[in-house]
Amino acid sequence: MQIRTLSDLVRFDPEKKQKIPVFDSPHMYYDLYTLLPGQLQRPFAFKKADKIVYVLQGRLRITVGGESAELREGQVVRVPAGQVNAMENAADEPAVALVVVAPHPECAERRKQRKRPK
Amino acid sequence: MQIRTLSDLVRFDPEKKQKIPVFDSPHMYYDLYTLLPGQLQRPFAFKKADKIVYVLQGRLRITVGGESAELREGQVVRVPAGQVNAMENAADEPAVALVVVAPHPECAERRKQRKRPK
Repeated sequence: MQIRTLSDLVRFDPEKKQKIPVFDSPHMYYDLYTLLPGQLQRPFAFKKADKIVYVLQGRLRITVGGESAELREGQVVRVPAGQVNAMENAADEPAVALVVVAPHPECAERRKQRKRPK
Repeated sequence: MQIRTLSDLVRFDPEKKQKIPVFDSPHMYYDLYTLLPGQLQRPFAFKKADKIVYVLQGRLRITVGGESAELREGQVVRVPAGQVNAMENAADEPAVALVVVAPHPECAERRKQRKRPK
């Protein structure tokens, strides 16, 4: 059985935000993001995949489209496919989030390539 | 922005396990499962979708294929597509899990139907 204990996987890097895969699944990303105060993920969008961010520790400022909100531990936000989003640890304590993206962005890309006319 | 506070959604039912959708996404299930002591989910498999179970509160006995393990708060297990799995609250306290299934099982089913020869 593929069992993980999330607290065993958490590590921070003073250089930049960390993206720590919990499992290697062909169907989704299921990752921990760890951000020290001031660290961020720049604006980005997955064209075909939904992204759901669940704050496990600390606080995170999340921007979706033009809107921003600070999420605290236990709060979750959905970023619908195609929407530009960003996150920043604007607080004074480390932050950890569980980020799920589905379908797996690379698989969506492969499907698109297969559909292209030759 | 679609923001949820997970603790606001948690409810238990003495009749049976509850499955509480956190978001309505076309790409995945992202649900809370709540189980009082003795409650369970019978063996079941998604043919085309991975399922990841994260224990948020209490303990859950998870079976994948022929193997079983009791997961505690903070532990996560991946059920690869096609594998029969079950869960039971065999402990003496309420249990809450976050269950993600991707791709969305109904979408996988629709794709299959479109591919069928007429």
